[in-house]
Amino acid sequence: MTANTLNQLYTETLRDVYYAEKKILDALPKMSEKVGSDQLRAAFEEHRKETETHVERLEKIFDMLGEKASGKKCDAIEGLTDEAEQMMREVEDKKVLDAALVAGAQAVEHYEMARYGTLREWASLLGHNDAVGLIEETLEEEKAADAKLNKLAMDGVNEAAARAA
Amino acid sequence: MTANTLNQLYTETLRDVYYAEKKILDALPKMSEKVGSDQLRAAFEEHRKETETHVERLEKIFDMLGEKASGKKCDAIEGLTDEAEQMMREVEDKKVLDAALVAGAQAVEHYEMARYGTLREWASLLGHNDAVGLIEETLEEEKAADAKLNKLAMDGVNEAAARAA
Repeated sequence: MTANTLNQLYTETLRDVYYAEKKILDALPKMSEKVGSDQLRAAFEEHRKETETHVERLEKIFDMLGEKASGKKCDAIEGLTDEAEQMMREVEDKKVLDAALVAGAQAVEHYEMARYGTLREWASLLGHNDAVGLIEETLEEEKAADAKLNKLAMDGVNEAAARAA
Repeated sequence: MTANTLNQLYTETLRDVYYAEKKILDALPKMSEKVGSDQLRAAFEEHRKETETHVERLEKIFDMLGEKASGKKCDAIEGLTDEAEQMMREVEDKKVLDAALVAGAQAVEHYEMARYGTLREWASLLGHNDAVGLIEETLEEEKAADAKLNKLAMDGVNEAAARAA
């Protein structure tokens, strides 16, 4: 990255989240396959569809900037998805794995909330007003996904894990 | 990780955040050294002191569990701190770097908020009531640190970066 203006930093951060969203698109079906709870599987599946929309919104934003949509390896999302994959390999009990995967997915949502929150402020400050609304929509969906996962964790997933073994 | 009960998953996640807090203790002085804004440097320095307390609280929690305090490599925090280090190497303009480092620090705070939020619920469900209060205190400090960074970003750091170059 050679970002010496906020505009360049903004574009580089868009590439970071574009990479992250694509990585999440890959990870969610693997998580859906491994998860034990039907409600959790439905939540992962719903968020996969939302994530497709997030990718499309980013492509629109690149287009508006006159830039080619392209990702830049994001070490943070690599680490977050590596942790989820490690859980899927190593946690044998399905109920405990469900609790682990909700926690992992919430960590991913928090990463995205931080990034989109920053991008919204930068877009606004840089006068990219058409992008602000798109970023805001995605940010709200990430917050809602986190809240939904939290509700599932509190309404049964964690208790089922506590009863395991 | 061979976590087949929620208790084991809880202990493993404590090891994950213990590793993360130690990594943050290493990273914050490097960020303080590179940052241009005095207010931001003071915020990083203050959060370094808080992070020392977070490490001590985790050591108390391990002690209460009768476990040795030890970390387990956390890929997510490795990724997050790698991103901050890349910024420090590659962003030459000080004002733009300040904006990048606030954004990176907020991503770290969000990771910790997700993890401590999960740990608090698990501790409560598992009846580790003495740990719940300690985790809650750290969680509130992470949220406050994020809010403070946000305020600094909005009250001048981002605008200074937008004016650069």
